[in-house]
Amino acid sequence: MSRFWSPVVQTLTPYVPGEQPQMERLVKLNTNESPYGPSPKALAAINQQNTDDLRLYPDPEGLALKKAIADLHGLDPKQVFLGNGSDEVLAHVFLGLLKQAKPVQFPDITYSFYPVYCKLFGIDYETVPLGSHFEIQTENLKNDNGGIIFPNPNAPTGRAIPRSDIEALLGRNTQSVVVIDEAYVDYGTESCIPLLRGSACPENLLVVHTLSKSRALAGLRVGFAVGHPDLIAGLERVKNSFNSYPLGRLAQAGAIAAIQDQAHLESTSKKVIQTRERLVAELSTLGFDTLPSTANFIFTRHPNHAGVKLYQALRDRGIIVRHFKSPRIEEFLRITIGTDDQTNELITALKEILASA
Amino acid sequence: MSRFWSPVVQTLTPYVPGEQPQMERLVKLNTNESPYGPSPKALAAINQQNTDDLRLYPDPEGLALKKAIADLHGLDPKQVFLGNGSDEVLAHVFLGLLKQAKPVQFPDITYSFYPVYCKLFGIDYETVPLGSHFEIQTENLKNDNGGIIFPNPNAPTGRAIPRSDIEALLGRNTQSVVVIDEAYVDYGTESCIPLLRGSACPENLLVVHTLSKSRALAGLRVGFAVGHPDLIAGLERVKNSFNSYPLGRLAQAGAIAAIQDQAHLESTSKKVIQTRERLVAELSTLGFDTLPSTANFIFTRHPNHAGVKLYQALRDRGIIVRHFKSPRIEEFLRITIGTDDQTNELITALKEILASA
Repeated sequence: MSRFWSPVVQTLTPYVPGEQPQMERLVKLNTNESPYGPSPKALAAINQQNTDDLRLYPDPEGLALKKAIADLHGLDPKQVFLGNGSDEVLAHVFLGLLKQAKPVQFPDITYSFYPVYCKLFGIDYETVPLGSHFEIQTENLKNDNGGIIFPNPNAPTGRAIPRSDIEALLGRNTQSVVVIDEAYVDYGTESCIPLLRGSACPENLLVVHTLSKSRALAGLRVGFAVGHPDLIAGLERVKNSFNSYPLGRLAQAGAIAAIQDQAHLESTSKKVIQTRERLVAELSTLGFDTLPSTANFIFTRHPNHAGVKLYQALRDRGIIVRHFKSPRIEEFLRITIGTDDQTNELITALKEILASA
Repeated sequence: MSRFWSPVVQTLTPYVPGEQPQMERLVKLNTNESPYGPSPKALAAINQQNTDDLRLYPDPEGLALKKAIADLHGLDPKQVFLGNGSDEVLAHVFLGLLKQAKPVQFPDITYSFYPVYCKLFGIDYETVPLGSHFEIQTENLKNDNGGIIFPNPNAPTGRAIPRSDIEALLGRNTQSVVVIDEAYVDYGTESCIPLLRGSACPENLLVVHTLSKSRALAGLRVGFAVGHPDLIAGLERVKNSFNSYPLGRLAQAGAIAAIQDQAHLESTSKKVIQTRERLVAELSTLGFDTLPSTANFIFTRHPNHAGVKLYQALRDRGIIVRHFKSPRIEEFLRITIGTDDQTNELITALKEILASA
């Protein structure tokens, strides 16, 4: 604490990301990274940009990357906003679109960064409880709001809702922005991006993506939002009042190559989905209850074993998963889908832990 | 304009960075980049990190980079704050330290991003006029302020003040933060970092640096602030409420190697200073008035030729410099110090322009 802090700083409770331990030989299943590397074309493109030209500023608009994203998704480049990871994109979304007279709404169990942004920018929020099966119930979102935001699939549950639910929500909620955070969409969830194509693009729908999960570039820091050009123009005003150049030359080059290598995304996502289905089946035989997941992680609990104890016992064996000490979910473990070998190690460890408990 | 923007967005006038034209064969002297490449060790370190490990998040704390910066400057790593370029560092400084009940003060002619941050975060500010020779007069800064910020050397003038002026200011101004933006310090200005060493470190002094100028890594996006650990702790709270991972794996690796190659910085800065002195002398023979500069750019005007016309005539010859359409400085050109060849091209072009006018 310092008397020189701004008053707002004293009220902040910063977001705590999953740890990034520096130990070797760890089975790291705690921050939802891809178990497979990025597109080799991304590494090659970065290598090609790694020259004396790093002395020069990058394109502040990132036009080539916007064009690559627009081409992939059938959009106009004016519908694309770029950021230093989707967390920066979300920060600008909260300040630029969701800071309204009325409170923003999001689920009570969701990405825990949302209330942190609200505190930082002085935004009122209301949480809407998930259903008894941890499902988002869009019918419980009230129309009298300053905006709506949720991930699909939700985090940390992994549960998705169909696009038709979101279309229905957009039909009812016409007076505020609806933000769908699709960080984990590539593992079996219906994306809302098709709704943004052409002249039918809703004025109030924004979809946020990241290259940190299915594109396996968490270390490069690239995220984006797509939506109506007027929404994007508002975000650009905020970005250009904050940092002209959030994406360096290497990040832009690597991201373009990664976006253009859809085959790599599809083959690695398919492997993750296959491993996920096998893990869920194996956990079931061990007595775990696992929420239906269309993400690259699962959310699971055992009726006879406390979440925190399982977390610690796995950690003692060099396997790091995520545990949240929050109401309703403290018995759960969030486990990232790893390679098949990592999954085998996890299952073996859990069998030992359950047997010895 | 969209009815879905936050009210604050409508009031914003975003910062406009110097253009990054994509044309070939341009003499680009408009954004104060280094004319020489970064340390070859930085490129090698980036290359070594450009692997499948990009699938993993970077260290959110950037501890190894903080340690490298602390070691270079004789500080503790707890005195170092990292950001995605010094612009992001400054954004967090405005929100986290300078958003106070009283207005922040800065010169009337200075880095034009400062008032933009103020608008974004709803911060009152007062500008303090430069002296008649465009010098910062610290005695004109009032004690009744919510913070003070200025670059040393100042931008876009290139004029510096001695460290003793800032020490005297700190002696008078004890109730608010003083931020010295040392983006251009390595070209002949006294740094305030020595004041931060050991137990005499003032509680209210923060010094901001970038790797975009003398370290020749504008394309990588790394900046930092150093100061009292309590100030840094406040900035960390803001950063961790905004984006956990502003610096990717490649940026951290390249920055560490660049910081550790002080010899490269010294040799390239020395060349820039030599070229600057030669350019100033040549401009003087052409009748230009140039402000005394200890930066990697100069601020110059000709008594008989309008700034905007010179700017355009240079541009017609493929030489891009910066011109600001602002009161008191619209007759000036801000010219980045380039290579010796670029400087020769510039002088030749100016001779032609003056002769044909």
